[in-house]
Amino acid sequence: MKTVSENACFGGTQGVYSHASTACNCDMTFGLFLPPEAADGPVPVLWYLSGLTCTHENAMTKAGAQAWAAEHGIALVFPDTSPRGDDVADDDAYDLGKGAGFYVNATQEPWSAHYQMWDYIAEELPNLLAEHFPIDAERQAITGHSMGGHGALTLAMSLPGRFRSVSAFAPISNPTGSDWGRKQLTAYLGEDETKWAAHDASLLMRDKGFDGPILVDTGTTDQFIDLLRPEALAAAIAEKRQQATLRLQPGYDHSYFFVSSFMEDHVAFHAAALWA
Amino acid sequence: MKTVSENACFGGTQGVYSHASTACNCDMTFGLFLPPEAADGPVPVLWYLSGLTCTHENAMTKAGAQAWAAEHGIALVFPDTSPRGDDVADDDAYDLGKGAGFYVNATQEPWSAHYQMWDYIAEELPNLLAEHFPIDAERQAITGHSMGGHGALTLAMSLPGRFRSVSAFAPISNPTGSDWGRKQLTAYLGEDETKWAAHDASLLMRDKGFDGPILVDTGTTDQFIDLLRPEALAAAIAEKRQQATLRLQPGYDHSYFFVSSFMEDHVAFHAAALWA
Repeated sequence: MKTVSENACFGGTQGVYSHASTACNCDMTFGLFLPPEAADGPVPVLWYLSGLTCTHENAMTKAGAQAWAAEHGIALVFPDTSPRGDDVADDDAYDLGKGAGFYVNATQEPWSAHYQMWDYIAEELPNLLAEHFPIDAERQAITGHSMGGHGALTLAMSLPGRFRSVSAFAPISNPTGSDWGRKQLTAYLGEDETKWAAHDASLLMRDKGFDGPILVDTGTTDQFIDLLRPEALAAAIAEKRQQATLRLQPGYDHSYFFVSSFMEDHVAFHAAALWA
Repeated sequence: MKTVSENACFGGTQGVYSHASTACNCDMTFGLFLPPEAADGPVPVLWYLSGLTCTHENAMTKAGAQAWAAEHGIALVFPDTSPRGDDVADDDAYDLGKGAGFYVNATQEPWSAHYQMWDYIAEELPNLLAEHFPIDAERQAITGHSMGGHGALTLAMSLPGRFRSVSAFAPISNPTGSDWGRKQLTAYLGEDETKWAAHDASLLMRDKGFDGPILVDTGTTDQFIDLLRPEALAAAIAEKRQQATLRLQPGYDHSYFFVSSFMEDHVAFHAAALWA
């Protein structure tokens, strides 16, 4: 593992690290914020999964999460959103290929050689963090924005016991029913739609639910709200009688100005679960 | 004036606007955050001047200032750092020309046609804001980072009565004694060093001082600290018996991770003066 940079930040350290990924078969880069308390021993961790076109860097610089993570003594992990490198397959569209891994393990050509983001986030990166940093693997939570909200919700429901709480900002909530989903799930997983269900938060909610609290914020004037389909997740949550808080925020859009506006609430929400 | 974008942000609005600038003789772009209270009437305003290579956008997306401005009911203005456009003179170096206006009125060729950033920040933009937005011109404060800290300090001392408080993050504190200054002041103002003194915060402090409180933060491990020369400003402030708080922050560098870490303190500092 290689240290790309480390900056003092809110009394802790904002680091960027790269490593050779076995899952993705390429070098991967991630950001890690460690609060001051990490100097004294393992701290809880909140995963932040980013959206389409993002790298590890966007949320690290624009979401304003470190202030609140420092206040609550929580680490933040900012993974990349896809494999990277010249020999990694890509597509001209912004919503397929690099920057658009969708947090699945691709089974189809040309994607399957590197696009194994589920295994990367669910297995490889947690193990790497546990090995190298003072992270308490027993106290993990997860959040994300847009495609990353989709990733956070699907990982949390599919790995029971792993995360104590899950939240999302404007998540892609029902990808099997949206142009932000059907195209990518076809490309990565093939045309058999039964394979897609494990990567649709609304379908997973009806099937599994989540053993813990959920918080989801979406802006009422999000320019992509028709693609996000928050109504599908809201209905599934209500029908499942799932512990959750769903908020439609008046006047907010899909940007990081929206994400940062509600970050304090999300970090406090996770802190309550992580420090319980 | 043209609206480039408006995003809901912390209950207020983060806008970006462009206009034809008379001072700079080109189109200029700025960011403006209006807190929720602006819907009910004029609000106090904090100017944020950015550093080398920045546009209006960097601080707007990375400094985390809107959270605290919203809490205190204060507007934020994020001006650009130089004139822009294909017919504006430039230099290959990152620290001269575009992105490096140094908040002076250039008198030398080829810069004087457009590089009139002092007049733009001191006169034109305030008038434009007063005309179009609910800004209380009687309650203004100013801050900035690096080159923008230089701008904030020199403007505040040179326009007595304009700003109630001034702060800076890692300001270029003594440009007449630094490679971040001598090169640019020579290019923009010519070789007569007596013309430079009006744009050196440490010299202005000895000459004029500031009728209000000052807050300055600099990281002890700022990679540019030898160019910033905080010691010159510290000595001048002490000798002037100027009301001020100077903080050397252990382990922090020159990045926005540093700026954002102390933004809450700076906005609260200005809020105390603006709401007094």
